[in-house]
Amino acid sequence: MSRRIDLNSDLGESFGPWNMGDDAAMLSIVSSANIACGGHASDPETMYQTLRLAHENGVRVGAHPGYNDREGFGRRIIPMLPVEIGRMVAAQIGALQAMSAMAGTKVRYVKPHGALGNLAAADRDVANAIIAAVQKIDPQLSILAISGMQLEQAARVAGMQVYSEVFADRGYLSNGQLVPRGQEGAMIHDPCEAAERLLAFLETGLMPVIDGDPIKLDAQSICVHGDSPDAVAMAHAIRERLTAAGILISGFAQE
Amino acid sequence: MSRRIDLNSDLGESFGPWNMGDDAAMLSIVSSANIACGGHASDPETMYQTLRLAHENGVRVGAHPGYNDREGFGRRIIPMLPVEIGRMVAAQIGALQAMSAMAGTKVRYVKPHGALGNLAAADRDVANAIIAAVQKIDPQLSILAISGMQLEQAARVAGMQVYSEVFADRGYLSNGQLVPRGQEGAMIHDPCEAAERLLAFLETGLMPVIDGDPIKLDAQSICVHGDSPDAVAMAHAIRERLTAAGILISGFAQE
Amino acid sequence: MSRRIDLNSDLGESFGPWNMGDDAAMLSIVSSANIACGGHASDPETMYQTLRLAHENGVRVGAHPGYNDREGFGRRIIPMLPVEIGRMVAAQIGALQAMSAMAGTKVRYVKPHGALGNLAAADRDVANAIIAAVQKIDPQLSILAISGMQLEQAARVAGMQVYSEVFADRGYLSNGQLVPRGQEGAMIHDPCEAAERLLAFLETGLMPVIDGDPIKLDAQSICVHGDSPDAVAMAHAIRERLTAAGILISGFAQE
Amino acid sequence: MSRRIDLNSDLGESFGPWNMGDDAAMLSIVSSANIACGGHASDPETMYQTLRLAHENGVRVGAHPGYNDREGFGRRIIPMLPVEIGRMVAAQIGALQAMSAMAGTKVRYVKPHGALGNLAAADRDVANAIIAAVQKIDPQLSILAISGMQLEQAARVAGMQVYSEVFADRGYLSNGQLVPRGQEGAMIHDPCEAAERLLAFLETGLMPVIDGDPIKLDAQSICVHGDSPDAVAMAHAIRERLTAAGILISGFAQE
Repeated sequence: MSRRIDLNSDLGESFGPWNMGDDAAMLSIVSSANIACGGHASDPETMYQTLRLAHENGVRVGAHPGYNDREGFGRRIIPMLPVEIGRMVAAQIGALQAMSAMAGTKVRYVKPHGALGNLAAADRDVANAIIAAVQKIDPQLSILAISGMQLEQAARVAGMQVYSEVFADRGYLSNGQLVPRGQEGAMIHDPCEAAERLLAFLETGLMPVIDGDPIKLDAQSICVHGDSPDAVAMAHAIRERLTAAGILISGFAQE
Repeated sequence: MSRRIDLNSDLGESFGPWNMGDDAAMLSIVSSANIACGGHASDPETMYQTLRLAHENGVRVGAHPGYNDREGFGRRIIPMLPVEIGRMVAAQIGALQAMSAMAGTKVRYVKPHGALGNLAAADRDVANAIIAAVQKIDPQLSILAISGMQLEQAARVAGMQVYSEVFADRGYLSNGQLVPRGQEGAMIHDPCEAAERLLAFLETGLMPVIDGDPIKLDAQSICVHGDSPDAVAMAHAIRERLTAAGILISGFAQE
Repeated sequence: MSRRIDLNSDLGESFGPWNMGDDAAMLSIVSSANIACGGHASDPETMYQTLRLAHENGVRVGAHPGYNDREGFGRRIIPMLPVEIGRMVAAQIGALQAMSAMAGTKVRYVKPHGALGNLAAADRDVANAIIAAVQKIDPQLSILAISGMQLEQAARVAGMQVYSEVFADRGYLSNGQLVPRGQEGAMIHDPCEAAERLLAFLETGLMPVIDGDPIKLDAQSICVHGDSPDAVAMAHAIRERLTAAGILISGFAQE
Repeated sequence: MSRRIDLNSDLGESFGPWNMGDDAAMLSIVSSANIACGGHASDPETMYQTLRLAHENGVRVGAHPGYNDREGFGRRIIPMLPVEIGRMVAAQIGALQAMSAMAGTKVRYVKPHGALGNLAAADRDVANAIIAAVQKIDPQLSILAISGMQLEQAARVAGMQVYSEVFADRGYLSNGQLVPRGQEGAMIHDPCEAAERLLAFLETGLMPVIDGDPIKLDAQSICVHGDSPDAVAMAHAIRERLTAAGILISGFAQE
């Protein structure tokens, strides 16, 4: 049984005058912050303020690159070649690295956002292009990837440090995939139910699924959302429940 | 008399489908390339292709950050606090650094673009904010600054390696300032005249001015333009004339 | 004594995934909505949804053009020639007009936003450029302008229908200007105080000021804010108080 | 035999400091200008200057809306619902209409650009959404559509005035489709060959194809490109040849 787990969340997704989520609350809950890099969200000021706040909260910092598509919030697949994706991702990581130097912290890992994250999970060429870019920028960067998917495997093959995540509020299928949004069981709305499921998973390594027996999943991190008051409440409840059960919430990556 | 000088030019200023200047021609002429970072111009693909071409031509690479204002091409002052300018510049330098890692080269120096360059030359607070940002990102970066202005002095005070530039095609006043555009003598259009003036300057350290005796200017680099066929021809003529006089065209920064 | 007044507010200032303000609440309070046009805020979907909601609430619709500067939310002066400002404003008004046709409503007036609004209030050339653009697009459009300033006067001289506004929550000086932000008395935070001041103004035509006797101001509209829960509460309180005093809240422009 | 034909070209595709194509040359050749609306290209200044120049040359003006994707120049399909496409197109047409009022001319027709044009040719739902948007904005607008495709048919069913185009420099297949780019015969590079083929088509109504007998196509317009010196030369050669054969080059839409 795992006595330690990371909680990660997508943060720093405000833009100019527009706020998104309650980053201050989330940074008191999570141990790792996936921070937008100016692609699907953010700008230099938002990056800087988020990095400062993460640093002050002792939260580990990762780059969260996405399609350069603010109107679509990085949730639309923009047709691009894998090499173009690699370069787009590189420019965003570099921007966040420089902002981290300004804020006195350091980018430790990379987790692609939204439609890019889904594509990198499903398409090995895209996964490889992202891995190649990250390695050229800084071989010490880790990858945070969806458990069991292409990006995780590509990172392992490339010899990178890779951490896997499960989702706190998404149902799983027996093939290891998420229940598609819109289907019964796709979302877990009850914080208690979510927390108990995660606790069971951490104790057994087996994740309950909606269509059969629990399946083995490997995960060093749990992804929690923070884009609504309900989401923050769920993240808080999960942290409380896991901590009460003696599980340490702690960033995965070693210095 | 100086037997060696750097030639620098603003390059990589295309954007998406739009081309600007003849970078391939200019990269066979200059020894240093000030490369746009996605602020006033450029995008990840343009950065990458320009950096590759610079690398193949053995041209030194500098970051050329500007206001995030593509429509205005960084030629308009966008009201920002100095600290905001520092962060904006940092994000752009970081993006170019990561793209340089992709392209197998390395950013050696920083030269602000357009309205930001003019403001950094005139406003010590802005100069200091840029210097502070550059030092936090990478203390080994140099500054390329207009000879005799605030950014140059701020860099020196901060203990940075700083190189100064004169302009190949701009007239000077006896107070060391450029003749304002639109005034008689502001622009030098004749390549021969420009080359002879620079040769005289390199041999004596004294720059001819339009309103008095030549003045002492310190410069390790000459800025040439490449945004029109005439500009490329002038840059070429200057390189030929200086080389014929036994002056080595060579990047200023040591490894 | 005026028995009828318009309440206007800046709405439709969300952008892509980012929400701003509580437009649904405000559209049940105001009689006129100044709707962002994709410059400082908004996008086609946001324009459409805001226009639909305004239409369903019987609220009059105006165009609220601003600088094309989302990161600065139109609050920074971008250096432009007056003719360039006129064209920028024209493109934004045209976009909102077409979206209004899609939403089954019609743009009735124009009120410039933020830094552009302040500049148009202070600079006659800018005011004239905006007036000229609006007249070319549709001579039936009205202008909503800050009472006593350049845009109001330019519109009158041009023979346009012009409506003047006072601010519900800003203190006035005896010269008719607003108390600058940051100074004592600049903001009125108490809804009751704001409502009583407006009621007194509507009954007498005289606006209390912080540095002398009440001054005569001409206004057909009151500007209320809706960008925070407190702002919505104040707008609601003002509507209630005025209505209770027998004043009709009603759009200023005739069909 | 047709004694009259329209020549159309995509123009006004510069952006900020970046120029594209030789609009001045093309506007002395074509009878209709499809003008970018700030989506895939252009900005208020570019729209205005292009519209002025079109007006001075007596060239008819159409709106050329595309995906809001400058980096991809509207050549990438951005995933959007048909209703979202309709609203995006509406905002762009509205912007160009207002700029036309500024420039003293009037938008007569709509032709979608690039990836959006291809999608509207292939996908009836997208075609219908565009048609619905255009009709709501101004029922007097015409549609310029690729001959034989969905947008043309949707416009006809909706009772709109619709004009069909053939391409001057693209090979056709016997099923009426274009030879895909990259295949033998996709492009016609020789101006004489292009002109003779068009002349034969205009005289017979039958378009030569690369895989069989000439096919019947209906067209009131020929699309010529202007984005390179070669393209301008071809457009010029076609105009000269058709005019020499007694064919009148004239805008299709009636006042």
